Amino acid sequence: MNDLHAAFAAPAREALPRLTPAERRLVEAELLEMASRGPGTGRILDGLREVAARVPERLYADSAEVLLRMHEIAGSGNLQSNLSSLALVRACFAHGLVDDGGAGADRAGEGPAELVVGRGHIAPAFYAEHYVRGTLPFAPLATLHQGGLTGVVHRDLGFRTTMRYSLGVGVAQAVSLAWELARGGSDRKVVCLAGDGELHEGAAFEALRFAHDAGLTNLLLVVDANGKGIEPLAKPLNTGYLAAYLGTLAEVDGCDDGAVETALGELLARPGPAALVCRTRKGDHSFKPAGAAPPAPGRPVSFASTAGRMLGAHRERTGRELAVFTPDMAARFGLGGHVPYTNTGLAETLTVGMTLSLPDHVTKVVATDAMYYMDSLSMLTEATTSVRNLLVLAGRSWGAWGGAHNATNLLGLLLHTRVYEPVTAAEFQACLDRLARDPATAHVVSMIDAAFEPPARDCSADIDGGVWLTPPGDGPDAADATVVTFGYAGVLVEAANRDVGLPHLHCAALTPRLDPAALDVLTRSRRILSVEYNGAGSGFGERLRARHLLPVEVHAVRRDIATRVHRNQLPLHGMSPGPLRERLARLLENREGSGHAPAYA
Amino acid sequence: MNDLHAAFAAPAREALPRLTPAERRLVEAELLEMASRGPGTGRILDGLREVAARVPERLYADSAEVLLRMHEIAGSGNLQSNLSSLALVRACFAHGLVDDGGAGADRAGEGPAELVVGRGHIAPAFYAEHYVRGTLPFAPLATLHQGGLTGVVHRDLGFRTTMRYSLGVGVAQAVSLAWELARGGSDRKVVCLAGDGELHEGAAFEALRFAHDAGLTNLLLVVDANGKGIEPLAKPLNTGYLAAYLGTLAEVDGCDDGAVETALGELLARPGPAALVCRTRKGDHSFKPAGAAPPAPGRPVSFASTAGRMLGAHRERTGRELAVFTPDMAARFGLGGHVPYTNTGLAETLTVGMTLSLPDHVTKVVATDAMYYMDSLSMLTEATTSVRNLLVLAGRSWGAWGGAHNATNLLGLLLHTRVYEPVTAAEFQACLDRLARDPATAHVVSMIDAAFEPPARDCSADIDGGVWLTPPGDGPDAADATVVTFGYAGVLVEAANRDVGLPHLHCAALTPRLDPAALDVLTRSRRILSVEYNGAGSGFGERLRARHLLPVEVHAVRRDIATRVHRNQLPLHGMSPGPLRERLARLLENREGSGHAPAYA
Repeated sequence: MNDLHAAFAAPAREALPRLTPAERRLVEAELLEMASRGPGTGRILDGLREVAARVPERLYADSAEVLLRMHEIAGSGNLQSNLSSLALVRACFAHGLVDDGGAGADRAGEGPAELVVGRGHIAPAFYAEHYVRGTLPFAPLATLHQGGLTGVVHRDLGFRTTMRYSLGVGVAQAVSLAWELARGGSDRKVVCLAGDGELHEGAAFEALRFAHDAGLTNLLLVVDANGKGIEPLAKPLNTGYLAAYLGTLAEVDGCDDGAVETALGELLARPGPAALVCRTRKGDHSFKPAGAAPPAPGRPVSFASTAGRMLGAHRERTGRELAVFTPDMAARFGLGGHVPYTNTGLAETLTVGMTLSLPDHVTKVVATDAMYYMDSLSMLTEATTSVRNLLVLAGRSWGAWGGAHNATNLLGLLLHTRVYEPVTAAEFQACLDRLARDPATAHVVSMIDAAFEPPARDCSADIDGGVWLTPPGDGPDAADATVVTFGYAGVLVEAANRDVGLPHLHCAALTPRLDPAALDVLTRSRRILSVEYNGAGSGFGERLRARHLLPVEVHAVRRDIATRVHRNQLPLHGMSPGPLRERLARLLENREGSGHAPAYA
Repeated sequence: MNDLHAAFAAPAREALPRLTPAERRLVEAELLEMASRGPGTGRILDGLREVAARVPERLYADSAEVLLRMHEIAGSGNLQSNLSSLALVRACFAHGLVDDGGAGADRAGEGPAELVVGRGHIAPAFYAEHYVRGTLPFAPLATLHQGGLTGVVHRDLGFRTTMRYSLGVGVAQAVSLAWELARGGSDRKVVCLAGDGELHEGAAFEALRFAHDAGLTNLLLVVDANGKGIEPLAKPLNTGYLAAYLGTLAEVDGCDDGAVETALGELLARPGPAALVCRTRKGDHSFKPAGAAPPAPGRPVSFASTAGRMLGAHRERTGRELAVFTPDMAARFGLGGHVPYTNTGLAETLTVGMTLSLPDHVTKVVATDAMYYMDSLSMLTEATTSVRNLLVLAGRSWGAWGGAHNATNLLGLLLHTRVYEPVTAAEFQACLDRLARDPATAHVVSMIDAAFEPPARDCSADIDGGVWLTPPGDGPDAADATVVTFGYAGVLVEAANRDVGLPHLHCAALTPRLDPAALDVLTRSRRILSVEYNGAGSGFGERLRARHLLPVEVHAVRRDIATRVHRNQLPLHGMSPGPLRERLARLLENREGSGHAPAYA
């Protein structure tokens, strides 16, 4: 067993049933080769190259075809984004901008220029091109999004940078590098691959403006202008803006490999900063397998995607006027067809800012991923202190892009704000009704991107309180051990608790106001476990400890969120049924022990 | 007594000694008039207008002279910023864009257009112009920055919006309003007054880009292009960029009242969006009274302003390479002459982003106000997870602009981060030494913008621990009541505790690692008070409660930070010597009482 084998063998074997017979034979040969290697010490990428060299058979010669197969095997991903940049990626390979082995060490300083990939989710296009060039085996490609290869650029896999948290960060990474090179007296260029949607981000503007004003002459911005984020952009890329900051601007047909390669070569050879705008095409943002059946009626869908329908129902029920703003996330929240909305493009701070001057009576809804608010907390504070009737929908997927593990907790610390995580339509409506009663408090509603069966009971009657999903008994021993949960964790614990049967209090509020009876049960419990699929720091459990001085054992997310799909994310954080059941059962150990267990776990 | 009298009488009386004899007579007459009014029910602004009408004498006919007098009386402020926009402000009055009384109610929908003032700190220019036009009395002007009038635009004083947290928010407020008007079918224009420095903010770009792409035709951006933030801008305003997004662009001599008025009138009359760039001049950013003596040697200066010297000393002592980035805050941190630094302009997210691609061995320093990081937490998380040797200086003034009261706590919740608030040079150096030992953890160092005598002892020997500024005695009663403080609060409590003599543990770490002996004293205390000049939510005291389940009574900032100078800020939050002494003394009450006091205060 070595690093390579550990990283890819298990998910590659899981993928075998989805492969063609030829792919299966190839992957099995590659896995044998991986298993035969000694304990790995070098870079994963170098090891993969050695395997590729030892198993040289290539099944495909066209990286577009490889990309299609990768996504068919994965069953999800951003195939069209990868395809729209493929000519740009090929041009980067052609000009020697991509680490294709060679010395085997960090290649900073080699090649004609540095490459920073800002379109973070086009890593698969690079892997596909590596494959057809013989510098990657097929096995890792078959593990994309399935616990092996991630779709986002990462230093461990040949990229100059790793990208995790911020859209628009790639341009900042490139400008930081260009500044560092210039400071060291080098005129080496930095090529930054960006998307036209990504350039909507204020962070990207700040970087381009600074590069211009600081007189950096070594930045070459290559834009995949496909005119589309998740939805079509409202207007095409503003080339006048780019020319104003980068001086030289060239446009090229981005679907023509040769044209892109030639234009990139010319700009690399030319002194001074420049932008290369590649006009490309992009289909549907999210890959759907051909012939996939539409979701069966009654089959559960992601709870977050029901937001549009629930907002529409609220509007009909109350007659309230809604103004909904989303930075390209209408599909995720299922807005289309249910409520009118304004797509603000990839500009989260502006999305929040759009609420600032609206009339008091309008319910303002902003909707994006919880982590994307983290670059807008100041603007959001401006809104929570000056805007009435503000509903902040904070998506929680922790999927392929990872996430800020305690974004929800940070949102809960803003002035005039309360946070909820509903798991039923009735709880969601209770949040909206509460906002109507308390319009000066911004209501942050965490929306889970997962499909699940709602619990039998919920907090809709008292959204600030708690409800027993498994009630405590009446005996003196009734409250030996108790579990308290926040939001989605209530659903996970309900399932895990079926065989254990602990008293289980479910809360929709991050900072619940528990009634004396519930508090009394907790106070009499020998052990109390809190469970939240949420960052531990200043989260639900820590707030219970701080507020009530109860020796709550906090089971929550403590490590960074990995970039992998939801079902692979859960076990990482001890939130899948097996580990949860074990954690619950452990509470019943040492029943005869002396008082409370050590509390800060 | 009425609202008006309550708001301005006390600070106006305090200002009397600084007034000319004529001003004094006038203010006294105005105060008499204010005192004679019945209980106020209407807007403060309307009341002030009535007073101005009843005491019609005008001492000055030129608003520039009024501005100078306002700043001379206040002794601080941004006189030059106000002067550089004065012609623009006069043009807004001339075209009827300013609420000058009239109907007396909310004038939304009146006048030829809506005005949103994005340069938030030029409110005094409006007040000065109001004064010479007879629509404000002199008394409130004499209270600027001194507990009466604030220098930042506020709805209560005739502005369309209030500005608090975000630079660049004005453009978002304007675009939000333009969108709302367009949605309602109106073609009414929105005039947005902005500064060229402010346009560096990514948030401003996001708003202008959206306005263009959404096809809004009713935005008129008026830019005070004085070429200066606090320091001179690296390059003049990029008009090509503005033209790319606003279409029509006019430039005018911004020091010429008539030219600005004419140009504004033409653009108001013309259909479609436009930018009016007013070329102006601006002197020193911060007002200093003429003939003010330079600080005497040995006189304490703001602790934050010693950062440059301390960083320089660290570099000399260790030979480490530093890369320092600041968004126009070099003066505040005293960088000039001590360490090389890069002024990134008003672009906080990029400032953080500039650290992303630097070599591991370089110590990366970013320096701005704690609250300005709140729009960059995602980018900062990118840095704390991928950058080594990262020092985040977080200024804490809570002065005229207000601030996010628990920004420090939010920073402390980011991954791979620890927060300190040093109050001595040795503690600051200990933070830097700790970073050198633990380079994978970002060190956030809260820097207080106040002058104070350092305590006699500090935490420099163990920056993560605590040190007794007043040690507990040895008797059984030794630990009846104990006070524990975080950072700057230690200095405040040390002074207040002189007459009380409680055992006082000072900590520089937001999450200290207390040794068993100190924890034992706390555990044996009947009452424990924690004091922090910091937001209560997830702050120092709440963390002590959550971590150690100690019944700590938390004395911390719970209300919003007001927009006033530091010395007027402290009493608002119970942090001035009198209230602190009382709070400490109260711990000794009920010494014979039963056990711990109610803990969550």
